[in-house]
Amino acid sequence: MIATFYEGNRSFSVKEKPIVPPGSDEVQIKVSFCGVCGTDVHIYHGVMDKRVKMPITIGHEMSGVIVQVGKGVNDFQAGEKVVVRPLDNRGEKPSDKGHSHICKDLKFIGIDSPGAMQQYWNVPAFTLHRLPAATDLKLAALVEPLAVACHDVRLAGLKKDEFAMVLGGGPIGMLVALVARNEGARVVISEVNPVRLALAKNLGFEVVNPSEVDLLQFAEETTNGRLADVVFEVAGVQTTIDQMTQIAGIRSRIVVVAIHSQPRPVNLFQMFWKELQVIGARVYEKEDYETAIQLITNTNLPFESLITKVQALSDIQQVFEQIEKNPDGMKIILDCQK
Amino acid sequence: MIATFYEGNRSFSVKEKPIVPPGSDEVQIKVSFCGVCGTDVHIYHGVMDKRVKMPITIGHEMSGVIVQVGKGVNDFQAGEKVVVRPLDNRGEKPSDKGHSHICKDLKFIGIDSPGAMQQYWNVPAFTLHRLPAATDLKLAALVEPLAVACHDVRLAGLKKDEFAMVLGGGPIGMLVALVARNEGARVVISEVNPVRLALAKNLGFEVVNPSEVDLLQFAEETTNGRLADVVFEVAGVQTTIDQMTQIAGIRSRIVVVAIHSQPRPVNLFQMFWKELQVIGARVYEKEDYETAIQLITNTNLPFESLITKVQALSDIQQVFEQIEKNPDGMKIILDCQK
Repeated sequence: MIATFYEGNRSFSVKEKPIVPPGSDEVQIKVSFCGVCGTDVHIYHGVMDKRVKMPITIGHEMSGVIVQVGKGVNDFQAGEKVVVRPLDNRGEKPSDKGHSHICKDLKFIGIDSPGAMQQYWNVPAFTLHRLPAATDLKLAALVEPLAVACHDVRLAGLKKDEFAMVLGGGPIGMLVALVARNEGARVVISEVNPVRLALAKNLGFEVVNPSEVDLLQFAEETTNGRLADVVFEVAGVQTTIDQMTQIAGIRSRIVVVAIHSQPRPVNLFQMFWKELQVIGARVYEKEDYETAIQLITNTNLPFESLITKVQALSDIQQVFEQIEKNPDGMKIILDCQK
Repeated sequence: MIATFYEGNRSFSVKEKPIVPPGSDEVQIKVSFCGVCGTDVHIYHGVMDKRVKMPITIGHEMSGVIVQVGKGVNDFQAGEKVVVRPLDNRGEKPSDKGHSHICKDLKFIGIDSPGAMQQYWNVPAFTLHRLPAATDLKLAALVEPLAVACHDVRLAGLKKDEFAMVLGGGPIGMLVALVARNEGARVVISEVNPVRLALAKNLGFEVVNPSEVDLLQFAEETTNGRLADVVFEVAGVQTTIDQMTQIAGIRSRIVVVAIHSQPRPVNLFQMFWKELQVIGARVYEKEDYETAIQLITNTNLPFESLITKVQALSDIQQVFEQIEKNPDGMKIILDCQK
């Protein structure tokens, strides 16, 4: 089989590798598709070189079909379509208070152990979610990032008819917006990139470009002074950190979806004045995966529009180089059987 | 009667003034005691000169007795002991979503209109809370700051047996700690001032001095790695903003009680990693006042220990000058009949 390896220094290798049978409590998956996540791009940039053990196969936004099951696996069988929830929480302790998805000793599969950017992949059976037989496996590669969005919207406590503003129209921002709208909220996407703005419009969203329009004034006028009930900060820059407390109305919730590696000045006075809540959100829980699978397989939400390109696994180096050069792109998916 | 006026430039005047009968829907109160709030000290420092209309009578942490009621007031009568919830929410709008205590056009009585540092005070009847006849009116002057603490603890969603850390052992920090402990939480007060540390110890609290001990290590060791379930940031400095995200455990809540007039660097990575919630809290709601009155009148909590001194209203200038010079002090209360 073909496997790819991040070798450091912005380079991937593509190598032949023997197919290994699954161990006890493991399942062997023939990987169908694997999306490229922002985290994968971070790894490619060398930002996580201290954490990843090179050479390493990365990738976690995948879909596939079970080939064989290891000893002790009774609830899955060959031929079933699946996705992996790449959280290895076997190090969970009582001090994690039952929040196993963010337990202190969490290992992220595809970062801390080998991932899905290869043709065959052995994973612990407890990480699997079964897909209906008719599932489009290309779309199913979106289950993982969609589960992130489902988690964010759930932690926001978003209710029908609330007004949500999504700051940043990248892949996760768009998914958050789709999930939020599906919950019955009115959703506006704030974005500066014209290509992403056009895509958001095509998806039927109200959009605003804060480099052309005063965002606070926009929020005030469009809500009759109520401002946003929920803000999703998905852009990860200081400007959106400043905006998030401005455009939030009284007792609003702000979910910080983007990862900020450095402390950021936050307007705590606005938080006090309007009794805002800022909510940190990380990965997903089992129920978010179930919701994401349901949305992918049982609704007509326009997930297809978020897939910019599908390319062969063996083109991995070129794919990562392209992503860097194209800030307009959304999801790039690797076809792992090519 | 005697009334005091903030005249700007760190000075108060004390003047004779005629007693005016209450208007319609108003009540005339003979003010018994009025505590000095941090906000009053801010006003004295000139920080709020743009907001207050000098000369102005300030003060809002009061207790008193009704002298007469104006036209249209049927539910109160002369002789009743009362406290005032100094929030004038008559400008409330639908865009405030029913959160009248922080409505956009809220007027704070004692800042935006005359306050209680005078012998007789006319206030709208809707601001009153009745006290039991046997209430100690000196202690009742603590109802207002205690209601702040009740609000903070309520918004934290603090549960029995949770571990709460209070960063800052000033008057509000101590009140938060007392309310939190009364809810059944284990409470540690973190403070650097030795006099305040000694007082906190006298009140039976576990204490920690973060200038002598590594606070994170302390929190880890004392909770077996669980860290704090709830953090109250009551000190208002960058150090405690840094500490609050460090010592908070997985899915913990952080209530920012202190007022930060400038944006502060906040560790959003910790918020993401541990899925923390940061909650802004401002003043109080009706139910917090009722809880505070209940705690003052029906429990044996050691509120008396928080009163550093009671001084005559006519000494107001000296009182504010002393407060500045004494960082050890807790609550100073003006006796408004002297």
